[in-house]
Amino acid sequence: AQEPEGNQAPAERSRFNLNRFSVKKILRESARDKIVFIHGKVGQDCGEAQDAVVILEKTPFCEETLPQLLNKDADLRLQMRNDIYSTHHLYPLPSFNEIKTTVVYPATEKHLKKYLKQEMYLINETADDYKTITSPYLQSQALSVQWVYNILEKKAEVERIIYENPDPQDGFLLIPDLKWNQKQVDDLYLIAICHRRGVKSLRDLTAEHLTMLQNILQEGQVAISKRYNTPQSQLRIYFHYQPSYYHLHIHFTALSYDAPGSMVERAHLLSSVIENLQTDPEYYQKRTLTFALKADDPLLQSFKEAGRV
Amino acid sequence: AQEPEGNQAPAERSRFNLNRFSVKKILRESARDKIVFIHGKVGQDCGEAQDAVVILEKTPFCEETLPQLLNKDADLRLQMRNDIYSTHHLYPLPSFNEIKTTVVYPATEKHLKKYLKQEMYLINETADDYKTITSPYLQSQALSVQWVYNILEKKAEVERIIYENPDPQDGFLLIPDLKWNQKQVDDLYLIAICHRRGVKSLRDLTAEHLTMLQNILQEGQVAISKRYNTPQSQLRIYFHYQPSYYHLHIHFTALSYDAPGSMVERAHLLSSVIENLQTDPEYYQKRTLTFALKADDPLLQSFKEAGRV
Repeated sequence: AQEPEGNQAPAERSRFNLNRFSVKKILRESARDKIVFIHGKVGQDCGEAQDAVVILEKTPFCEETLPQLLNKDADLRLQMRNDIYSTHHLYPLPSFNEIKTTVVYPATEKHLKKYLKQEMYLINETADDYKTITSPYLQSQALSVQWVYNILEKKAEVERIIYENPDPQDGFLLIPDLKWNQKQVDDLYLIAICHRRGVKSLRDLTAEHLTMLQNILQEGQVAISKRYNTPQSQLRIYFHYQPSYYHLHIHFTALSYDAPGSMVERAHLLSSVIENLQTDPEYYQKRTLTFALKADDPLLQSFKEAGRV
Repeated sequence: AQEPEGNQAPAERSRFNLNRFSVKKILRESARDKIVFIHGKVGQDCGEAQDAVVILEKTPFCEETLPQLLNKDADLRLQMRNDIYSTHHLYPLPSFNEIKTTVVYPATEKHLKKYLKQEMYLINETADDYKTITSPYLQSQALSVQWVYNILEKKAEVERIIYENPDPQDGFLLIPDLKWNQKQVDDLYLIAICHRRGVKSLRDLTAEHLTMLQNILQEGQVAISKRYNTPQSQLRIYFHYQPSYYHLHIHFTALSYDAPGSMVERAHLLSSVIENLQTDPEYYQKRTLTFALKADDPLLQSFKEAGRV
């Protein structure tokens, strides 16, 4: 087999060069987020072109450099004017208008698939579907939540704990979510993890868990108010269903932050869950729960095989 | 009083000029959306500086110009490299990296207030709160929904109707939402408006409305599947509470689109609403409903006066 790059050092081989890059296909893009995932080819001087994934994301505005971005050398062109309102195209100097660029090169089929836009499917999971499809699927996966137990047992992330109610039945730990850098409360994001084990998700909750849920709601709000000065009226407190791991946990996010996963098809307000359980202790064993799954989620495959999608 | 611009034509007076613009304050910004709302001053040659609002929003990537944006003249600087992954700062030529700029000049206090970031407050509206606070507030406002009646009576937007079930009790109209340009189904957004009058919101729904709700769910899905080829498994179908107008209507949005107002604190899935009404005909007259209000919403004032926030 030909080995055209055989003489190059490994670092050199994977050195990405725009000169030799050509766009093949848009894998995914978001007009709202101003991000694009590109599949491209990087031509070799003497050999086959190799795949690369290039992710471009426009950067947020930076308060410090705004005066420079808007200085007189910037090219501002009028588009439309109506009374006191006008729209323009602005072309600032490149140094004030950066694009964050991430390159995967050489990229494999797996990378291309990972970044390709995936269709979402809405599932209406009845009580029966949970018993016959979801629950057997979860058991077959035998997903480990050892990392959660490590937190609960103070073997990991001890210094990150914001609050604890140590009761083994009705207590919980409160820690910042890893997605939150804790530098500003605009995108505040904490997680309450219950001490009790074996409660996998919303589906398992009954009136028996009401004390625990009320502790999490009330004590969580107080702890966050004390630590971050964010009042309870500015917190969104909810479960995910399906959750990303099957040990019961609750999300606390800033109300003004469009947190991923706070959409109606995934989030369930803790206060509503408490009221539902007070009205019917077996509410979550009886009801249809709706959620979205990505096209490549194996659980979707199980619902398809059962003729439920 | 001095009239320094007296000699200038009105159009000239409101001509915005970056040369004389200085940043005073960031009114609001979103790191996710890459948008910033700036309060600035525009200095007059001989007179007081006037207020201006400048809105900068980075533009989405454009598939057609990507090859030019990524051409060899673009300045790509390595930030970090690890195995096949690397991150870079990219500084493309200005013409391929535009910023959409909207200017309000001169701006009034009202404009400044409109664009200023507003705190959000979460309201837990009990059944009693609705009777004693929300309902009297809505009556005092006497908000007109004449524009909705115009649509239902075919006096307006006739050509926009996608589907109709003309039954005066259980029928409805389906039309594209004005926010949707109908050019791509990625951000598909339609509204079903019921023919029956006097149903203000989710709070008014009882088992009596089940036939209408089931018609909207089933016929709406079929109509959208036929017209836009979007299957029901890729639709998010929901109410807003509080709604933005008080004639019952239902939102249909593409599941993959993060539609504004589809967060758990505002959206209620139609399928869940139907199930709740089947279980308890007076579910929505009894339950606490949670929603967020902006700081300047007069309804928030009413809740504050009642000591409920």
